[in-house]
Amino acid sequence: MVTQEQCLYWDKQDELSAFKHEFALPNNVIYLDGNSLGARPKESLNYAQHIIQQEWGEDLINSWNKADWWGLPTRLGDKVGQLIGANAGETVISDSTTLNLFKVLSAAVKIQAEKHPQRKIIVAEKDAFPTDIYIIEGFIDLINQGYQVKLIEGAAGLSEILTTDVAVVVLSHVNYRTGYFYDMTTINQQIHASNALIIWDLCHSVGAVPMNLNQTNSDFAIGCTYKYLNGGPGSPALLWVNPKHRDQFWQPLSGWWGHQKPFAMAQHYQPANNIRRYLCGTQPIISMSLIECGVDIFLKANMQKIREKSLKLTDLFIALVDQECAEYGFELITPKAHQYRGSHVSYQHPHGYEIIQALIARGVIGDYREPEVLRFGITPLYLGFEDIWHAVQHLKAIMQHQEWNNQSYLVRGEVT
Amino acid sequence: MVTQEQCLYWDKQDELSAFKHEFALPNNVIYLDGNSLGARPKESLNYAQHIIQQEWGEDLINSWNKADWWGLPTRLGDKVGQLIGANAGETVISDSTTLNLFKVLSAAVKIQAEKHPQRKIIVAEKDAFPTDIYIIEGFIDLINQGYQVKLIEGAAGLSEILTTDVAVVVLSHVNYRTGYFYDMTTINQQIHASNALIIWDLCHSVGAVPMNLNQTNSDFAIGCTYKYLNGGPGSPALLWVNPKHRDQFWQPLSGWWGHQKPFAMAQHYQPANNIRRYLCGTQPIISMSLIECGVDIFLKANMQKIREKSLKLTDLFIALVDQECAEYGFELITPKAHQYRGSHVSYQHPHGYEIIQALIARGVIGDYREPEVLRFGITPLYLGFEDIWHAVQHLKAIMQHQEWNNQSYLVRGEVT
Repeated sequence: MVTQEQCLYWDKQDELSAFKHEFALPNNVIYLDGNSLGARPKESLNYAQHIIQQEWGEDLINSWNKADWWGLPTRLGDKVGQLIGANAGETVISDSTTLNLFKVLSAAVKIQAEKHPQRKIIVAEKDAFPTDIYIIEGFIDLINQGYQVKLIEGAAGLSEILTTDVAVVVLSHVNYRTGYFYDMTTINQQIHASNALIIWDLCHSVGAVPMNLNQTNSDFAIGCTYKYLNGGPGSPALLWVNPKHRDQFWQPLSGWWGHQKPFAMAQHYQPANNIRRYLCGTQPIISMSLIECGVDIFLKANMQKIREKSLKLTDLFIALVDQECAEYGFELITPKAHQYRGSHVSYQHPHGYEIIQALIARGVIGDYREPEVLRFGITPLYLGFEDIWHAVQHLKAIMQHQEWNNQSYLVRGEVT
Repeated sequence: MVTQEQCLYWDKQDELSAFKHEFALPNNVIYLDGNSLGARPKESLNYAQHIIQQEWGEDLINSWNKADWWGLPTRLGDKVGQLIGANAGETVISDSTTLNLFKVLSAAVKIQAEKHPQRKIIVAEKDAFPTDIYIIEGFIDLINQGYQVKLIEGAAGLSEILTTDVAVVVLSHVNYRTGYFYDMTTINQQIHASNALIIWDLCHSVGAVPMNLNQTNSDFAIGCTYKYLNGGPGSPALLWVNPKHRDQFWQPLSGWWGHQKPFAMAQHYQPANNIRRYLCGTQPIISMSLIECGVDIFLKANMQKIREKSLKLTDLFIALVDQECAEYGFELITPKAHQYRGSHVSYQHPHGYEIIQALIARGVIGDYREPEVLRFGITPLYLGFEDIWHAVQHLKAIMQHQEWNNQSYLVRGEVT
């Protein structure tokens, strides 16, 4: 039996508890959706005021140099790089995850086309966040060179499909729905043994789990900055390329920010001899700049300690749902084994949608994903053990009193 | 002879003069670079505070619905649409100009490939802002289907090149360097007479000149929101598609924001049956939202009156340089004829770079573009006639005293 007192005790022992004060969270809310939109770092307000008043309003175009707006994609890329095992100069922040996937997919396919022209299969996961599949479809349709996407179900499906036809594999490091967490080392070895290339989607893993893209010999990676990294709604995305691939390819979203000499106004494109060749057009400076507030908090913490606390919190969540809600039919779809679990916990339940609405009405913010999935994001920098206790008590009360069975919760908007 | 008193008088008569108070400009600065980065609307600071504190910090993921973050691309698109002669539902705000060009170019090429498969030429301008050429090159290289880009010099070059080989023409409505302003009606007729399609780059014309994309029967348009529209540094770009083309094509940067049912998590891409099919991934909400502050000011003004004042101010600038600086060798490269002039004035001068640095040192902010071009943006909502008087007096003083001949002005950074 876990008790509330134990949770309180664990909070007192928690080395990371002070980080909660770096975030501005609403009162009376337990926020379990930081895996969708990270909470707001307090510093973001001051920093936005500075950018808007001073950099934009007072310094105007001079800020391209003075505030180094031009250098933001690589300066922030290097900071985020420290969380993913990248060296300086290997990462850029730019555009969106979907667009960055288009860029690295183009690169990976082109590299493979030169070495292994017969390989025409791009492997993705049935259960990936769908935008990854959509952009692969768009790419394949556009280039019209006989490529096909094949969808697999999880890691087991991978070994069966890794034939001599496979050019590139796109995998979610942590699955957005189930929280399944791939072992990067093993998977990379498996994929490279078959001469395919790997693109890692880090949306649900960057800031959630430690990783080392270089040590594991990954090929390409992309991911969000607005989830665990708390960069702000829709903040631009990360893109990492293994240095061995970097200069081999001229990615086709070739805008002036990726040019070797962007201000020479040259008539032909010539990509920069560095990671900036993965940039395209002008970046949204305010949304981009604010990423720094979130990332700087992570750089003061320690990714290993964040992981330890994350596992304790997700263990606790699972144990408490077992203990308090056993009779209500929640089916855990997140792996119990630590090595396969990211930093969110998901359950299937036939009334998942309504239960999430009832939780939100009680100030416990999780989210719902089709089909029937209740998803709870665990963000160790601003969640404590007692928060988890209270969240599960709310869940129990909703089930005990059938609070979910409320007509108003059944009305689904176009957007959920 | 134009006198300072006349300029003062014109300012007093100016119906638009009150709009200057909507903008936060630094003291002792004459800002002639609003065609590169628009000045800051005062309202942007309050609005950013609201978005960051309330929408992000307090309402968290609920803001996707409550603040309609999800609807921003079309809601803002419809507002910008009013300035370009678009009807509601025809415009989105999204990504960058360069990326939006990739999307509409893909669409235009695909439409042409079905009707006129022999047409393999994409026409662009030698003197276009180079990112347009770069992304055309990237597109052509990627699809590898025998397309070629041909560069023309201005409108004269267009009639020669419009053979039966031309699929698509990409033109800058107002040229970023010279300020040359195309007559949309005539050019569209000419291009359509040869069965080619037109893509208009509106970066230096939206908010600068009146236009009507529908009445002139344009095909596609893209453009910036951070120049004349004052959307903030690098704010996302506009994209307009003629309704007759809209549903014909599934653009290849097919991310979840363009899906018919983005939250159904469907396994295959199905584009929205509306202009949202030109969206890709998650948008930078803070940078995007702030566009509204600038556009709302334009919607209170009148584009025809803005144009009238713009022509008076550029006329004045040209007349004063003639009057005050005749002996200093400034060569006007902007057309004197009103129908061919946008809203900036450019001169060539062998010491252009140093002269611009000397002007900036005196608080007159223009900019420099290769080769040897001094560029002065005229933004009627926050510039008056006396501002132009003073700007030219500073220019004269710099030339009289050879202030430009200062060693420190010769040091060029990597970025200018």
